[in-house]
Amino acid sequence: MLSALDFARRLESGELTPALAVELCANAIAKTEAEVGAFVTLDLDGARKAAATEGLKGKPLRGLPVALKDIFDTADMPTEYGSRLYPGHRPKTDAAMVTQLKRAGGVLLGKTVTTEFAHTDPGKTKNPRNLAYTPGGSSSGSAAAVAAGFVPLATGTQTGGSIIRPASFCGVAGFKPSFGLLPTIGIKCVSWHLDTAGFFAAQVADVAFAAAVLTERDLRVDQRAPVSPRIGVLRQQPWPSASTDMAAALDMAARAASAAMARVKDVLLPPVLSAAFRAHATIHAYEAARALAPEYERAGEVLPALGKKAQDPLCKGTRELIETGMKISADAYDDARRTASQARRAVSDLMSDFDVILSPSAPGAPPKGYATTGSSTFNRLWTLMGTPCVNVPGLADPNGLPLGVQVIGRFGADRATLEAALFLESALARRG
Amino acid sequence: MLSALDFARRLESGELTPALAVELCANAIAKTEAEVGAFVTLDLDGARKAAATEGLKGKPLRGLPVALKDIFDTADMPTEYGSRLYPGHRPKTDAAMVTQLKRAGGVLLGKTVTTEFAHTDPGKTKNPRNLAYTPGGSSSGSAAAVAAGFVPLATGTQTGGSIIRPASFCGVAGFKPSFGLLPTIGIKCVSWHLDTAGFFAAQVADVAFAAAVLTERDLRVDQRAPVSPRIGVLRQQPWPSASTDMAAALDMAARAASAAMARVKDVLLPPVLSAAFRAHATIHAYEAARALAPEYERAGEVLPALGKKAQDPLCKGTRELIETGMKISADAYDDARRTASQARRAVSDLMSDFDVILSPSAPGAPPKGYATTGSSTFNRLWTLMGTPCVNVPGLADPNGLPLGVQVIGRFGADRATLEAALFLESALARRG
Repeated sequence: MLSALDFARRLESGELTPALAVELCANAIAKTEAEVGAFVTLDLDGARKAAATEGLKGKPLRGLPVALKDIFDTADMPTEYGSRLYPGHRPKTDAAMVTQLKRAGGVLLGKTVTTEFAHTDPGKTKNPRNLAYTPGGSSSGSAAAVAAGFVPLATGTQTGGSIIRPASFCGVAGFKPSFGLLPTIGIKCVSWHLDTAGFFAAQVADVAFAAAVLTERDLRVDQRAPVSPRIGVLRQQPWPSASTDMAAALDMAARAASAAMARVKDVLLPPVLSAAFRAHATIHAYEAARALAPEYERAGEVLPALGKKAQDPLCKGTRELIETGMKISADAYDDARRTASQARRAVSDLMSDFDVILSPSAPGAPPKGYATTGSSTFNRLWTLMGTPCVNVPGLADPNGLPLGVQVIGRFGADRATLEAALFLESALARRG
Repeated sequence: MLSALDFARRLESGELTPALAVELCANAIAKTEAEVGAFVTLDLDGARKAAATEGLKGKPLRGLPVALKDIFDTADMPTEYGSRLYPGHRPKTDAAMVTQLKRAGGVLLGKTVTTEFAHTDPGKTKNPRNLAYTPGGSSSGSAAAVAAGFVPLATGTQTGGSIIRPASFCGVAGFKPSFGLLPTIGIKCVSWHLDTAGFFAAQVADVAFAAAVLTERDLRVDQRAPVSPRIGVLRQQPWPSASTDMAAALDMAARAASAAMARVKDVLLPPVLSAAFRAHATIHAYEAARALAPEYERAGEVLPALGKKAQDPLCKGTRELIETGMKISADAYDDARRTASQARRAVSDLMSDFDVILSPSAPGAPPKGYATTGSSTFNRLWTLMGTPCVNVPGLADPNGLPLGVQVIGRFGADRATLEAALFLESALARRG
């Protein structure tokens, strides 16, 4: 994998040029992209042109190649949202984060595969760790592009588990910041209370570097040793258990942290968090039915004209989500929102004793095949809570398939969360 | 003015047809639109076609003509955001609220003038009450279209005072619901913590009707008599005082409410609300600088190519807002957000004694001329608090210029707020 921080350092020192950085990516892509299928649009010529711009070295990203999940609007590249309703769509305006990345000296390499409208219907991407497995979703191509060594940095979004899960499945670092920390303007909206933008990169320090640059906040964690965190380990939760391998990985992570002098204690979630877990589904579907109402209507208008045997322009998962949401009453939605507010206070209370909570990033290793991108059960609650989450890579099952562990911090405490994730990543690396 | 509720009732009974409703609007528009300039796009042919659709009578809006502020994306009509950067722009997809309006049986008549990107730089619209005066902004055309009797319903958005102020200046009802009640997907974003969608219509019951339909909530206030509200009158505030005429209007409204048996008491804002008033400016500019970063960059790219004497594609007010925001540090922004959270709790405490707060909707009557759309000082704090606000029309200064009073409710208590506004509107009507 390509380290964003290492690239940035070498670009800064002049050891590497932005043009050469693009060629390193292009070479890696030429080798295995045909198998992995991480990109929906690849714009190497555009990237070469951008890499030749004056003054990149003086900008915070220094000419770093970046890939964008294809739900980020780009005026210079098609933006298809993984949807058959948007073939070749060219938005007039870049997403706010795209402008921020360009301004900061990022060189945009292309658009990565997303499930349809960042929900569950998979795209073409395979898991670079083992091509027989799903990369996870919805940010499938971004996670895979980093895992395959195609790019040192890629953007993602999470509404259920769309950053942390694919990061876990692909064995890369994934960072979902506190809700609202990164602007979502120009990112296709599915749920306005859940959609959260974030990053994929090789390691924790790499995602922290990208987040520090984009948010202009003190989030870099590579410049001083992290303080030993107080960790609450979540072994039981109000959703189905993790696999035996994943439970063992969690245990291993907890022991590694403990051995590295972190204070590690088991933690139990208060009952309101079970209700909040269920509330996520209500809020997600209710808002998706409204956010994607224009697409639902358009599909309905197009479908009869296509004839009887025509393919529905909406995939099955998206259609089900919208139609589920259309049946949810305003009362049920308002109740779910109130539950979420209570749960946020409960999390805040719970975390007065801990810096972070440690849990599996996913139910287990990636499922075999491509029919599903896996389950977001271990992520949804935290998306709804708006808390920063980091997938820490480094562990694997006996077949070598990645098993990520999730570091969950306090809302707004993104730095402490990244520091704890770095601490854990280092502890796991020392272990073996 | 055309009453939305009256239109809907007559459409339901068959006394009026959707086609005739469009013609009533078309006739009014033909008479004075050339002077008022409420529309940037008028699509009477499209409206006539939509009015001929089967089954409108059975839908909740029953074929009601609606005008849309031109920051709502429409796939069938240009959407220019009041900006020179978007001439003839055609979004691929409708805003979520546009789809909701169509689904509910609204007939879209056209797009109304907005200040550039819903900020301060005025469009062409004049105040229908007196053409020498500003209609207010940023939802200038929507307020004017209702005041001029062009349409019974128009959409607006408020980031500072962009619904309540123009409603006050034009003498119509304006409703800014609780933050997030109406979806803002596909509405041009200026500030993601402030932008709030709402409505203009002739009277309080009309905006309540529209909000009830679009939110599918029990917000109609025309079907039972409102309960006497407990009103806190805000005569002093941490921003410059209202004009003498406006202070008199507030006093008159308080006395009318009292005479109608409301419990009326003066209220004082706790000190944290002064800090929150200032925090609005920080949050607004910081977020606008990010939300409009793509446009800022585009203007910067286009400008040199246009030559030395070229007009800046960004208006002065927008450019200043963005450049102010670019200078605000993340720390200052985070502080402002924390202040806003504290202030929301303080408002919630303050309102345990009141159903609503009553304040001026604007510093006074509309300013003369068109150079400015007036000041949002009386609205900004409440936009930041996310509380529902209603402009109650009915009062005027000695020159007959409208003076609106603002009914401010508890977050999430949209029905109680609309009821109190209706109560006050009736009390004022009885008075005269």
